Amino acid sequence: MTILERHDSNGIATLHLNAPEQLNALSDAMLAALQAEIDSLRDDRETRVVILAGRGKAFCAGHDLREMTAGRQAEDGGQTYFADLFARCTEVMLGLQQIPQPVIAQVHGIATAAGCQLVASCDMAVAAEGTRFGVNGVNIGLFCSTPMVALTRNISRKHAFEMLTTGEFINAARAEELGLINRIAAAQDLEQTTTTLAQTVAGKLDAAVKIGKRAFYDQLQLPTADAYAHTGAVMVENLLLRDTVEGIDAFLEKRDPDWKNR
Amino acid sequence: MTILERHDSNGIATLHLNAPEQLNALSDAMLAALQAEIDSLRDDRETRVVILAGRGKAFCAGHDLREMTAGRQAEDGGQTYFADLFARCTEVMLGLQQIPQPVIAQVHGIATAAGCQLVASCDMAVAAEGTRFGVNGVNIGLFCSTPMVALTRNISRKHAFEMLTTGEFINAARAEELGLINRIAAAQDLEQTTTTLAQTVAGKLDAAVKIGKRAFYDQLQLPTADAYAHTGAVMVENLLLRDTVEGIDAFLEKRDPDWKNR
Amino acid sequence: MTILERHDSNGIATLHLNAPEQLNALSDAMLAALQAEIDSLRDDRETRVVILAGRGKAFCAGHDLREMTAGRQAEDGGQTYFADLFARCTEVMLGLQQIPQPVIAQVHGIATAAGCQLVASCDMAVAAEGTRFGVNGVNIGLFCSTPMVALTRNISRKHAFEMLTTGEFINAARAEELGLINRIAAAQDLEQTTTTLAQTVAGKLDAAVKIGKRAFYDQLQLPTADAYAHTGAVMVENLLLRDTVEGIDAFLEKRDPDWKNR
Repeated sequence: MTILERHDSNGIATLHLNAPEQLNALSDAMLAALQAEIDSLRDDRETRVVILAGRGKAFCAGHDLREMTAGRQAEDGGQTYFADLFARCTEVMLGLQQIPQPVIAQVHGIATAAGCQLVASCDMAVAAEGTRFGVNGVNIGLFCSTPMVALTRNISRKHAFEMLTTGEFINAARAEELGLINRIAAAQDLEQTTTTLAQTVAGKLDAAVKIGKRAFYDQLQLPTADAYAHTGAVMVENLLLRDTVEGIDAFLEKRDPDWKNR
Repeated sequence: MTILERHDSNGIATLHLNAPEQLNALSDAMLAALQAEIDSLRDDRETRVVILAGRGKAFCAGHDLREMTAGRQAEDGGQTYFADLFARCTEVMLGLQQIPQPVIAQVHGIATAAGCQLVASCDMAVAAEGTRFGVNGVNIGLFCSTPMVALTRNISRKHAFEMLTTGEFINAARAEELGLINRIAAAQDLEQTTTTLAQTVAGKLDAAVKIGKRAFYDQLQLPTADAYAHTGAVMVENLLLRDTVEGIDAFLEKRDPDWKNR
Repeated sequence: MTILERHDSNGIATLHLNAPEQLNALSDAMLAALQAEIDSLRDDRETRVVILAGRGKAFCAGHDLREMTAGRQAEDGGQTYFADLFARCTEVMLGLQQIPQPVIAQVHGIATAAGCQLVASCDMAVAAEGTRFGVNGVNIGLFCSTPMVALTRNISRKHAFEMLTTGEFINAARAEELGLINRIAAAQDLEQTTTTLAQTVAGKLDAAVKIGKRAFYDQLQLPTADAYAHTGAVMVENLLLRDTVEGIDAFLEKRDPDWKNR
């Protein structure tokens, strides 16, 4: 049994967090497995879209508290270990946005603390009815400061502050309303709904989607005028792709494009 | 027949994109006409509010793909032309926010790709029921990277990412929910609803509105403390206007203001 | 009668703006009283949560226009006074976010202009049904440029622009929808609902909440990677607190934590 299952089908790579007994906690082993997949996906030209899902009752319940507690045995009380742990976790969260393929979280059960951060860090998210989301570390005295970075870049301030300081959960409908997820599906339709979304994206011209995803995050961090200068250059690059020439020609001629590297 | 009609009435300038056969595409001619109006509005003290609308079935369907395809005939395959095109388009989009008058998009039919960017770039937007919005360039292999700059500054990340990578349309109700538009009107009421909104704004003290619009975009790009330093100075400038003195006096005396330069 | 009442109970400090005849306007005296409380709260280890409420018909109607008008008698027409006034007001608004305790606005009646800014500047807000919110200075020729700083960091652009340039009010339901407030309560339940929220937060580990609030605003102003570097260090600091060790131990042992400095 591997801690992170990967299944590839028609350009869609589905990763299943597979530590159901630990509610798919982001243990050292889980983070390493995620990082290895991220590194592999970076140059994986076959894969067009990634789905991130979880086995068992929960999508992901955050960090592995048992392992963290064991880490306190070090001479410095765990300080070095913790600093390294958050650096590794951050690398995974940012890595999901840095890889060229769009990443869709397929969420069920609970997504809490760093598990909620994982949802917020994916490019899109679909959740089953009944899923509960929380950044509830504050309930045990550990404020969800790193999950907050991703959360506040998804939902508005006052709602984020409330979730972080009350530790209360929100349901899928509320998560959709606030912008944390894109779509809700009945539990039995979750996989199909997510797959359909993935297939929709995988059906586009791969190079265009990948150019676009990179530009998406790059431009978000720039002042508006700089963002336009950057994306203007991206558009020119995109327009000079042979398949984009064909895509536009086909559109003007009202026929389907004949893409070489669909 | 001019490609961009202008009609002035009571301080409200209504611009109609008028290339219905091309679904009001942002051709070189259309961009030049828009830029000319923007340049003219910059120092136009008579105009208090601008409405941007479209003739025919669509508000605007984005760039002119036929013209762009023709541009590929150049020796460099169009690279220089495309770079210049996006520079000109950006100047128009930013120009809408730089001119002193609030600009309201009056949207019907479809607003797609750079047409959706146009809606996002206006200060406010009213749409007819049934209007469809999309950043659907990805469907023909051209990711909407420049429209994305405006879109992501209007709506939240996950919803923007979904629109950009699926190419799917959203309707007016959803656009309102996400923050892309301000109001929805029945098709037959669109013009009246937009005009009423424009008249409401045009009825305010012109100098105050214009000071405020400039400060709106300036402060958005600043860290909070700097934004306060900047707007604090703007408030002082505003308070020293003779008409603002009168506005406050009138309020305290429970009478209508007698504004010299209403 | 003091202009700003303070009542302390179980770690919750409730401040009541108490100038009902002036609709709790932010006069020089009111701003000074707020600043004095903010300065006192900065090092107040007993207080865990702050509630900001208002006596009389309104939460707060903004600046004191009579006092401002009187300030025009100075040789410079009030310029120095106004600049100083906005500097003082900004210090209060930013101070609410700088003090370690979460601040909850308990809003009723009206919250207009700088009163609306006060709501936007609090970390959370609960409003009574029937409350009306506006940044309506434009109606008297004074654009709400400083309130805009807080407002645009709470709600999306197009809605903010509309409120600022039309001067129109929104009701509590709309304010909740836009993200300006967290919760709505029936008028007779407002105090109880706010208190319950305050008690929920006050029931958490105080040090964790205070570490988190500081990190919340710090990371919002940073690029994502820097935000993670910063909050990663915050997490390590939080994890090394003795009470956090206990909180995690208690969670793993399925018992209540025995916190020394709850």
